[in-house]
Amino acid sequence: KPTFDPKEHQHLRYNPLRDSWVLVSAHRMKRPWKGQVEKPPEDNIPRHDPHNPLCPGSVRANGQVNPEYDSTFMFDNDFPALQPDAPDPGSDHHPLFQSKAARGVCKVMCFHPRSDITLPLMTPAEIRKVIDKWADLIVELGAEYTWVQIFENKGAMMGCSNPHPHCQVWASNFLPNEAALAERCQRDFLQKHGEPLLVQYARMEAQAQERVVVENEHWLVVVPYWATWPFQTLLLPRRHVLRLPDLTAQERDSLASIMKRLLTKYDNLFEVSFPYSMGWHGAPTGSHLQEDMSHWQLHAHYYPPLLRSATIRKFMVGYEMLANEQRDLTPEQAAEQLRKLGEEHYKMKKT
Amino acid sequence: KPTFDPKEHQHLRYNPLRDSWVLVSAHRMKRPWKGQVEKPPEDNIPRHDPHNPLCPGSVRANGQVNPEYDSTFMFDNDFPALQPDAPDPGSDHHPLFQSKAARGVCKVMCFHPRSDITLPLMTPAEIRKVIDKWADLIVELGAEYTWVQIFENKGAMMGCSNPHPHCQVWASNFLPNEAALAERCQRDFLQKHGEPLLVQYARMEAQAQERVVVENEHWLVVVPYWATWPFQTLLLPRRHVLRLPDLTAQERDSLASIMKRLLTKYDNLFEVSFPYSMGWHGAPTGSHLQEDMSHWQLHAHYYPPLLRSATIRKFMVGYEMLANEQRDLTPEQAAEQLRKLGEEHYKMKKT
Ligand SMILES: O=P(O)(O)O[C@H]1O[C@H](CO)[C@@H](O)[C@H](O)[C@H]1O
Ligand SMILES: O=P(O)(O)O[C@H]1O[C@H](CO)[C@@H](O)[C@H](O)[C@H]1O
Repeated sequence: KPTFDPKEHQHLRYNPLRDSWVLVSAHRMKRPWKGQVEKPPEDNIPRHDPHNPLCPGSVRANGQVNPEYDSTFMFDNDFPALQPDAPDPGSDHHPLFQSKAARGVCKVMCFHPRSDITLPLMTPAEIRKVIDKWADLIVELGAEYTWVQIFENKGAMMGCSNPHPHCQVWASNFLPNEAALAERCQRDFLQKHGEPLLVQYARMEAQAQERVVVENEHWLVVVPYWATWPFQTLLLPRRHVLRLPDLTAQERDSLASIMKRLLTKYDNLFEVSFPYSMGWHGAPTGSHLQEDMSHWQLHAHYYPPLLRSATIRKFMVGYEMLANEQRDLTPEQAAEQLRKLGEEHYKMKKT
Repeated sequence: KPTFDPKEHQHLRYNPLRDSWVLVSAHRMKRPWKGQVEKPPEDNIPRHDPHNPLCPGSVRANGQVNPEYDSTFMFDNDFPALQPDAPDPGSDHHPLFQSKAARGVCKVMCFHPRSDITLPLMTPAEIRKVIDKWADLIVELGAEYTWVQIFENKGAMMGCSNPHPHCQVWASNFLPNEAALAERCQRDFLQKHGEPLLVQYARMEAQAQERVVVENEHWLVVVPYWATWPFQTLLLPRRHVLRLPDLTAQERDSLASIMKRLLTKYDNLFEVSFPYSMGWHGAPTGSHLQEDMSHWQLHAHYYPPLLRSATIRKFMVGYEMLANEQRDLTPEQAAEQLRKLGEEHYKMKKT
């Protein structure tokens, strides 16, 4: 019998942040792809479009006019999934028909006045302003809400309905499923092993180097051992940090720099503005601000859908939805591909 | 303060089969959609394509020639994610770098010799043959494997790479994540409430009628109270049945009939061959065949991605991936829309 080779032999890997398994079947990359081919991401976005409600000076759905902003710009989502004052569905429910109240706010934050720019094309100083705003938002909304989810859907393939560079913030009075899972897993790990899960993990990955994509003095980006999406990454501070506002000025500058490097590599992979959904997970807020949350470590997840090229994505469908997530290349192969890419943006080289 | 109205006021609903919550924000359907528009599903599929490896008489990737089959046809997946003899990754692992062996088989099953046909266009007798084969597969593969996942990816939007009507079967020596979740939730429910979860649920939904899409003597289809995908449905037997092979001849005929009715309604919704991923969940097999698994109830999940039209889908992205699944219409609204649709296939009316 041959000896085990993760690139040739399917196996399961454990995700300790979600208490679940992923099936790694790297030999599957050999199969030819005859399925759906995506439209490549739009490349000719005008710098300014007066009809785009996210641009400086535009009129939004509710009739308000955006200021002529020259850095970041924040406003309330005009079609929020969470509103602050929804009535309570009551609490007398049959175990099979349970509902509960959901209250919150949804905001949109533009990264930059120009529509034809994305984070990797912004300067570190411009990215730093985005980071500062994120931290402010956690302070401001976290005072009232239990969970403040900052996330960016980038690219039409990821359901993004506006090409202007922006992210969203949905704050809620409840811990969402994914947050509750990360809460439980990190709490159990600290109890059992005496060190926060992701603090230990970052140290071990920095040592091993095998799955590291980029790193600097304060931050580390890896394709996690348990990655589900082909080029999924996990962005981690080296120091134990609970939430975005806890970052020092130096750590924020350093974060701007590593984000630019990571996202440039992503764009360079298939020479296309790389689609993804990303988001920050930090310790819960609201009443948890008063509790010991030292089992938490701040981190960001990047979930990009592309698998083989700018137009061939990974479909998480049948088997993945009904049975088990499955990936077609090893996390180590993905990390190596990303690591080898240059850090000069392909668009900068061409001009 | 207004009284609670599920169509107007966001709330969370509990999924007792997955022990998680879904955020229902029905007022969000009002927002205009400016994002990605899908290609409508291909409508001009040739009846027979000699270059399609799924057609009768075609040559497959491994050089084998398909028989001139005239009903269902089964063969081994030429690019299987699970193979029966992969070596073991060993068991001496750090808690953050755990892997384990995965062994199994992947098969493909064609439903019909014609490529231009789908389940709702097949006769009940033809569908019955598919059902019998499914039951045989559970017996055959279930003798060795712990879990036999039968699933159908329908439509290019759902990663289906071949238009010929077919499903897949992936059998494994492990309980996949979703199966393990359904196992735990159903086991706990029986222990706590003295009746199998889905047996009780089917009875209550049949009584309430509010979420019923189609029903007959032996089967019930509902948009479950906790549905995540816009037009997600759950297909349930009325009798307590553990696995597909346990179905009587009458129940199989009745299943063929209700599948045809459900899938016709799906196609009629947007007058398009409705994409989805579907799959069967029955009690685990292998060594579990000898155990008391009476907490299980056989069921099938249908997960269709379309939301507003044949070309506008629901994106499960940023907030859904990083925080919490969210839906844009109530399950009751979806059930009503499906219930009101006719049961004659739109393609049959036009010809
Ligand atoms: O096996 P297929 O049809 O080539 O592939 C499809 O179904 C598989 C099982 O759900 C997925 O892993 C693939 O991403 C999808 O494209
Ligand atoms: O809010 P947007 O950008 O209109 O919408 C997008 O992100 C939301 C949050 O992840 C999703 O619920 C939507 O399905 C997606 O299209």
